[in-house]
Amino acid sequence: MNILFIMYDQLRWDYLSCAGHPRLQTPNFDRVAAMGVRFTNAYVQSPVCGSSRMSFYTGRYPSSHGAQWNGFPLRVGEQTLGDHLRRLGMDCYLIGKTHMIADAEGMERLGLAPDTVIGARQAECGFDAVVRDDGLWGEGPDGFYDRKRSPYNEYLKDKGYASANPWHDNANAGVEAGEIASGWFFQNADHPANIREEDSETPWLTDRALEFMERAEGPWCAHVSYIKPHWPYIVPAPYHAMFGSNDVPPATRSDAERENPHPVYAAYMANMIGQAFQRDEVRDKVIPAYMGLIRQCDDQLGRILDRLEETGAIRDTMIVLTSDHGDYLGDHWLGEKDMFHEPSVKIPLIIHDPRAEADATRGTTCDALVEAIDLSATFIEAAGGAVPTHIVEGRALTPFLHGEVPEAWREVAISEYDYSVTPMRAKLGITSDDARMFMVFDGRWKMIHFEGGFRPMLFDLQTDPDEFHDLGENPSVRDEIARLYGHLHHWSLRNAQRVTRSEGDLEKMRGRALRVGIMPFLWDGSEVPEEATAKFRGPAGEDYTP
Amino acid sequence: MNILFIMYDQLRWDYLSCAGHPRLQTPNFDRVAAMGVRFTNAYVQSPVCGSSRMSFYTGRYPSSHGAQWNGFPLRVGEQTLGDHLRRLGMDCYLIGKTHMIADAEGMERLGLAPDTVIGARQAECGFDAVVRDDGLWGEGPDGFYDRKRSPYNEYLKDKGYASANPWHDNANAGVEAGEIASGWFFQNADHPANIREEDSETPWLTDRALEFMERAEGPWCAHVSYIKPHWPYIVPAPYHAMFGSNDVPPATRSDAERENPHPVYAAYMANMIGQAFQRDEVRDKVIPAYMGLIRQCDDQLGRILDRLEETGAIRDTMIVLTSDHGDYLGDHWLGEKDMFHEPSVKIPLIIHDPRAEADATRGTTCDALVEAIDLSATFIEAAGGAVPTHIVEGRALTPFLHGEVPEAWREVAISEYDYSVTPMRAKLGITSDDARMFMVFDGRWKMIHFEGGFRPMLFDLQTDPDEFHDLGENPSVRDEIARLYGHLHHWSLRNAQRVTRSEGDLEKMRGRALRVGIMPFLWDGSEVPEEATAKFRGPAGEDYTP
Repeated sequence: MNILFIMYDQLRWDYLSCAGHPRLQTPNFDRVAAMGVRFTNAYVQSPVCGSSRMSFYTGRYPSSHGAQWNGFPLRVGEQTLGDHLRRLGMDCYLIGKTHMIADAEGMERLGLAPDTVIGARQAECGFDAVVRDDGLWGEGPDGFYDRKRSPYNEYLKDKGYASANPWHDNANAGVEAGEIASGWFFQNADHPANIREEDSETPWLTDRALEFMERAEGPWCAHVSYIKPHWPYIVPAPYHAMFGSNDVPPATRSDAERENPHPVYAAYMANMIGQAFQRDEVRDKVIPAYMGLIRQCDDQLGRILDRLEETGAIRDTMIVLTSDHGDYLGDHWLGEKDMFHEPSVKIPLIIHDPRAEADATRGTTCDALVEAIDLSATFIEAAGGAVPTHIVEGRALTPFLHGEVPEAWREVAISEYDYSVTPMRAKLGITSDDARMFMVFDGRWKMIHFEGGFRPMLFDLQTDPDEFHDLGENPSVRDEIARLYGHLHHWSLRNAQRVTRSEGDLEKMRGRALRVGIMPFLWDGSEVPEEATAKFRGPAGEDYTP
Repeated sequence: MNILFIMYDQLRWDYLSCAGHPRLQTPNFDRVAAMGVRFTNAYVQSPVCGSSRMSFYTGRYPSSHGAQWNGFPLRVGEQTLGDHLRRLGMDCYLIGKTHMIADAEGMERLGLAPDTVIGARQAECGFDAVVRDDGLWGEGPDGFYDRKRSPYNEYLKDKGYASANPWHDNANAGVEAGEIASGWFFQNADHPANIREEDSETPWLTDRALEFMERAEGPWCAHVSYIKPHWPYIVPAPYHAMFGSNDVPPATRSDAERENPHPVYAAYMANMIGQAFQRDEVRDKVIPAYMGLIRQCDDQLGRILDRLEETGAIRDTMIVLTSDHGDYLGDHWLGEKDMFHEPSVKIPLIIHDPRAEADATRGTTCDALVEAIDLSATFIEAAGGAVPTHIVEGRALTPFLHGEVPEAWREVAISEYDYSVTPMRAKLGITSDDARMFMVFDGRWKMIHFEGGFRPMLFDLQTDPDEFHDLGENPSVRDEIARLYGHLHHWSLRNAQRVTRSEGDLEKMRGRALRVGIMPFLWDGSEVPEEATAKFRGPAGEDYTP
């Protein structure tokens, strides 16, 4: 079996027709859902790209792997999917985005050169990079990503796009009166991107994935990781014109949310992104483009599915569709992601498992509380291994795929967010360490704990599915808060760093001290069988005592 | 300045005359105390050798570095004193014991050969090993330590000791009627070890330390790490005869402790070591030998101090005397260490700081709540560096050494213990992850939290300095327990794994997205200065839009 692990960036869980979107048709996502299981309660471990992805790739919570925000390098030696899968004979490839920052200092300290196989994998989050491109390509020395990381820009230049930065000037900008109409400006979101559709980011990456699948020998896991529908919100024709402001759902927001808001939530509502998405004109321009980008993703997914069907490879390919987090799009008076409302922290997750054991669940949904870190564990099992529970904190979803009920499934999903480098930290006047928040969600009650002395937030999704009413200060739910804090505290004391000793290793260690003769409890040796102390007896040889 | 970081193994805090021992004179420990500061409330991060030492060497809690018990390898890449000090131009050497287990799997995974400088340091906990010997040398393939690790045994063989394992047969055994009288049997603890005193472990290591100091060029930090007074409890003449059963203090234990004991404590009282030390004949044999071993350590310390004074090196040598944990010796009905009563978790800590700033504190004591991990931070400052607070969790003791009052010192000391590979886990019927306990001590109240659903233990050291009365079930102290749990929970959510980004790095990252043009909040660009969006404007070039 091969694994096609497809990730979209900032794709909301509910912007798919199989998830009930009222206007957006995604027939190819739906096609995979019909072949597999759609998980309706899947949560990321952090609602921000880099941190969330490092959790997907390590199977560990952000506070375990340490890369708690974009640009925090994943520490050298932290084990990833690549480590686990290669041990099982499965190669692990990257085609697209990871948001990985290499721990260059750590690599240098350990003498790992980036141009060795080991070094390259350390620098690429454990993957063998077929192509790595994170998008968001700035130009020149102050560019957000450096030149080497943009094979896409080089591709566009080869194709004759004459700009110094065609990623921006063509793929992510329109034209207005001969001038660049940048996709960075929301007012331009309804323009078609100034690029041939087949050269835009999503088809380009799909081509790379198809090329890979054509020549790859299995078993492999391929992480096909799209940059879209992440901003800049702009899409080439014909997708730019498929949706209009009349297709934009009303914002899920309530004036109640602005009455006595939690201070951290208030700071996010007041930031520039929140302010922008509170304007209807922004939503009316952006959301149709966002929908167009998703529709383009869907069409490109169709190409991959068609190819898998044509070659028959679909019969031994696990297909996973997911996202690194959602997008507020003005819901809850916010833009971007960052906090833990459903539009941000909940993700689409659809898995097609080709094995016969999964036949009974095809086309069904699963409501279990699932975490992004569960994918690593699922893939390890799919590759024929046992999950190394001393390293991987997620749990395999195999039982759900095979119509079984796992024993003692998790009671809460946990997500974390470190906002220490955001302007909100300074605005709130807190330290870096205090600029952290944690979600504890049991499927009904969602509590957010904040470091820094703030009160918690609490939502009851049963009576308040839109999460409008923060009950964090409501004395009537004190018991629920205490119960959820109990879960948080149990989780926070989890044994996450004992990564060098497996449960099997512990079993082998048990009793070892006695076996090798370490027995600091003997009066005369009669306490244990004679053979255990035989080596401590015998002729003394020369007598050195006075 | 050089740092002479001397560690004893299993040396109780109160078995020194400067700490008030009624019978044992330790003039050389006292001599350092007269030159420096004796810390009266110093606690280890785990009352077991390996885990405690890894905390000393990394400056991090066991659940941060992951080596939570003996034989759990320190994960490859985990930074140690060696990493921090070498960056500051100070070499870092080992002479003696570390209890380090190399992460062989991790080293192989990263391609680090043990015979390279980087590999050797990874395998030796960051030290350059002048000599590594952990003692407890078993013989043959089932030996506890393998042959390569026993330079001491090779030394004895070179000296003509004819046994296959002179570590045991001579250094740790006496003679009785021509037969080996093993030091593993408590009944033999009053025998003189069958070895010339100058060849026994403590003088042997002292010789190695003196040799090192003679030839070493600074600045250096030398970890001189003795194996004694750790068991086997046996000592060569004349030390074997210096103390007798009349010098043995009464056991600090009370029948009250056996009434309704906490289940984990009860399991420890019932283990073979506890049972042995509950017998007066064991204490009467063992404790005089333990005192003799300490007295020998003291004499050997005198040799080092004399040499430092003769050469004048004492004027630029920081001297640190400490231990990795204590020894119950029958107190609280227990032997060994493992739990968190004062005889186990509290350690001696004496620091001579040669700098003039420390003149005012010479010969004083400091009652601040100090942790073993503070030494790493102290050494980093002594080497001229700033403590990398994103990695090192301890705090520098420099202010206390210099007579200053640090702001906002810690409110609680934390210690951890993982007993997953001990027989107590199976006896209690709990999982490996649940076989963990945590001490939270604020200087008066000491609470022990147990995973696995047990109630906490609580002692009030103000009214009950001997820790006889476990108040864990006493409703009158519910508020204290809740308060200490608050500290535990705050600690458990600490930011311990963000080791690749310093506070300074975060500061540099702040605002970077805006600086490089990542601004997903612009309507038309007028929201920011024109130069910030200049690169998004200009002639569009060829028009590809339909």
